[in-house]
Amino acid sequence: MAAATAAARSIRDTCRAARRAARTLATLDTAVKDAALRAIADALIERTPEILAANELDMAAGRDADIGDALLDRLRLDLARIAGIAAAVGNVAALPDPVGEVIEGRRLPNGLDVRKIRVPLGVIAVVYEARPNVTVDAAALCLKAGNAIVLRGSSIAAHSNAVLAAIAADAAVAAGLPQGSVNLVAGGGRDELAELATQNDSVDLIIPRGGEGLKEALKAVATVPVIYAASGNCHLYVDATADLDAAEKIVLNAKTQRPGVCNAAETLLVHADVAPAFIPRVVRALGDAGVQVRGDERTLALAGCGGEPRAPADGAPRGGVGGAGAEERGAEEGAGAGEGSAPAVVPATEDDWATEYLALTLAVRVVHGVERAIEHIGRYGSGHSEAIMTRDTAAARAFQLGVDAACVYVNASTRFTDGGEFGMGAEIGNSTQKLHARGPIGLRELCTFKYLVEGDGHVRL
Amino acid sequence: MAAATAAARSIRDTCRAARRAARTLATLDTAVKDAALRAIADALIERTPEILAANELDMAAGRDADIGDALLDRLRLDLARIAGIAAAVGNVAALPDPVGEVIEGRRLPNGLDVRKIRVPLGVIAVVYEARPNVTVDAAALCLKAGNAIVLRGSSIAAHSNAVLAAIAADAAVAAGLPQGSVNLVAGGGRDELAELATQNDSVDLIIPRGGEGLKEALKAVATVPVIYAASGNCHLYVDATADLDAAEKIVLNAKTQRPGVCNAAETLLVHADVAPAFIPRVVRALGDAGVQVRGDERTLALAGCGGEPRAPADGAPRGGVGGAGAEERGAEEGAGAGEGSAPAVVPATEDDWATEYLALTLAVRVVHGVERAIEHIGRYGSGHSEAIMTRDTAAARAFQLGVDAACVYVNASTRFTDGGEFGMGAEIGNSTQKLHARGPIGLRELCTFKYLVEGDGHVRL
Repeated sequence: MAAATAAARSIRDTCRAARRAARTLATLDTAVKDAALRAIADALIERTPEILAANELDMAAGRDADIGDALLDRLRLDLARIAGIAAAVGNVAALPDPVGEVIEGRRLPNGLDVRKIRVPLGVIAVVYEARPNVTVDAAALCLKAGNAIVLRGSSIAAHSNAVLAAIAADAAVAAGLPQGSVNLVAGGGRDELAELATQNDSVDLIIPRGGEGLKEALKAVATVPVIYAASGNCHLYVDATADLDAAEKIVLNAKTQRPGVCNAAETLLVHADVAPAFIPRVVRALGDAGVQVRGDERTLALAGCGGEPRAPADGAPRGGVGGAGAEERGAEEGAGAGEGSAPAVVPATEDDWATEYLALTLAVRVVHGVERAIEHIGRYGSGHSEAIMTRDTAAARAFQLGVDAACVYVNASTRFTDGGEFGMGAEIGNSTQKLHARGPIGLRELCTFKYLVEGDGHVRL
Repeated sequence: MAAATAAARSIRDTCRAARRAARTLATLDTAVKDAALRAIADALIERTPEILAANELDMAAGRDADIGDALLDRLRLDLARIAGIAAAVGNVAALPDPVGEVIEGRRLPNGLDVRKIRVPLGVIAVVYEARPNVTVDAAALCLKAGNAIVLRGSSIAAHSNAVLAAIAADAAVAAGLPQGSVNLVAGGGRDELAELATQNDSVDLIIPRGGEGLKEALKAVATVPVIYAASGNCHLYVDATADLDAAEKIVLNAKTQRPGVCNAAETLLVHADVAPAFIPRVVRALGDAGVQVRGDERTLALAGCGGEPRAPADGAPRGGVGGAGAEERGAEEGAGAGEGSAPAVVPATEDDWATEYLALTLAVRVVHGVERAIEHIGRYGSGHSEAIMTRDTAAARAFQLGVDAACVYVNASTRFTDGGEFGMGAEIGNSTQKLHARGPIGLRELCTFKYLVEGDGHVRL
């Protein structure tokens, strides 16, 4: 009911209602917020039939509109997925409350006590695409951090999102949170996006969760601060002294464990001294794992491909030529692509160094030492996650100091860049910006801070 | 020479040179940076005649252009002011280095060690108006925090800024900092501002130091992140239980100690229970200090002005009527405006609650308790500095919790909101934004952070 009412209001009025709710939310005790989150989790289970019915409307419309199997799968809710969403809300309830944490504090020479404490941002707008689970995930994180939330989902998931937001809003209010804590704004159009993105008086932050098109649309119109999650063009650098067994495992993990995510590796840099020992074995292992390698000249030579591309006889470097595409090769895994099979290595072009494949493709380049690796990463990296494999403390130190990225790894896979893995609890995204939030955006990053100063009649002299 | 060369380059090229310098600056030891700052301080003293000669060119042009005495005074440099600028650089050198500080860290369950450490932002552009000292102050803070700086001053101070930037750049390079660490871009036009404000590839942050016109101009064009210092519409709330002697001292301090700055108080809220005891005395004291009071009806009545304005017989509430203007009254201080003199109280209008006077004027309103005070501040405040005077712990707690501002004071003057006072060393400005920096912008706020993660062949399962 609450969300349905909100949806009928103007975006401006909805944001103002959220602002009013935020003032109260900021003052609530942790126990009240956690009880509300548990109530939301319970309500999602109790009202599962409503969710399934609404989702079926979206699915039917999606099938009619021929949106494709991948999108339909992201849109689909079932008993297991709804139980998963509810469980995730329960997990957020169990996290420590970031609000009220003393970040630092001191007594000044004049006796004034200064504490810098974490407080909610206020109103956070989350703009997202198909997956309806974001409706609840984002609401839970924002509420836990004491913020009101304004959700703006995709029209493809309109029915599902409306029911999920209504369930969250109803349960939150019943559990004692103020009206306006959870809001859904209707309208998938660019005009509505622009209206939401300019509510500077009532919205403190916009977090987009979606593709580049959504981000570009926001960039063009937003006056409210936005935290953009840029792409992850992540690198692995294998130094001269690396443990090659460990390095090979890390390369395979960072590339293949989940290739479609932003913390997967896209380029492998190998120190020239160790390239003859490492390139042939890693190319073979990557080939076995269904990964297409795009190598510089030295890589091609070491991989036994001479200076010429081997697989694509016409030398065309891109676009799935060179035999089976990455996905199909992956499907063939274990079906004859064993030792001695010809690794799929094609020549890399300049574009490859700048490309986030998000697929079973890896660019490989030989470099002359850690400084050249740092230069390459400085030029092509997106500042997300970068890793060095080395046993040399000087090289590790130089890499940590010289690489400008949210997360810099020594002897570990880039795949660990994740709020959950980092012990921050859940995350709402990953920032490659440098201001406010960098790396995983967890509960603390959904907060700001204020200084509390206590005196005894202190005046400035 | 370095700065002169930089000024002749395009803004784009200058910013790119700064980006290259920033990569090296980020890796320098504290001792190297501090030695460079001390070299800059020494060079300012040694090259004082050059500075004075350049400043005289600006002063002559300013006099010819009739820019006014106030602006001429801000523009003027003399031996004492140059010595002060040099001393300030020395003070920055003596501050702790924010770079490399471990903000937090932990060992994850899988044995990975994660540290969140402070690192430089990279390239910071500072856009400022007349005062030439900002050229050096801003450069010193940015360099200390490991950032390259791109300065864009006012054309009024072009000669002074060019010499100061050249001295800083030359001394920095001679002391071992990379070329491009300190840059000055010429051109006071809006086109150049827009070009600078869109160098997203090479500039990480823009900090404007100037009036509202500059901020509005930036807002219209900037795609690079900007930290805006909004106005300070600061409040004092005198609760029912306040120590009235202490409260009166704080009111006078917050209003009169330096009325033209952003942390000066602009509105006084008084609990109704204590208003009869406090309003007459504080209005008298304010009058004695040359402050014009703009009161609500209750204030007017308690101050002995009935419901009618007393001083301006025609009832005109604004614009310096009501006798002498603030500055002139200030000059009269101690010259007959003693006890028993008629306090200058005029009726407040709705506009007064929203006005940052930056002058010897104070709006006064009677409110019914701390919750009403919080509401008033929530509606009219600019989120800068707010203070409660009380002996009641519950009221203090409610005020600290309920007021959404950078700095919330209990029994102390709002005038303490200052990087120096807070023990942060120097500051480059004050932020009323909620993202990244809130309150004083010191060395730490000129930094970002990164996560360093160390393992032993760790892969994600």
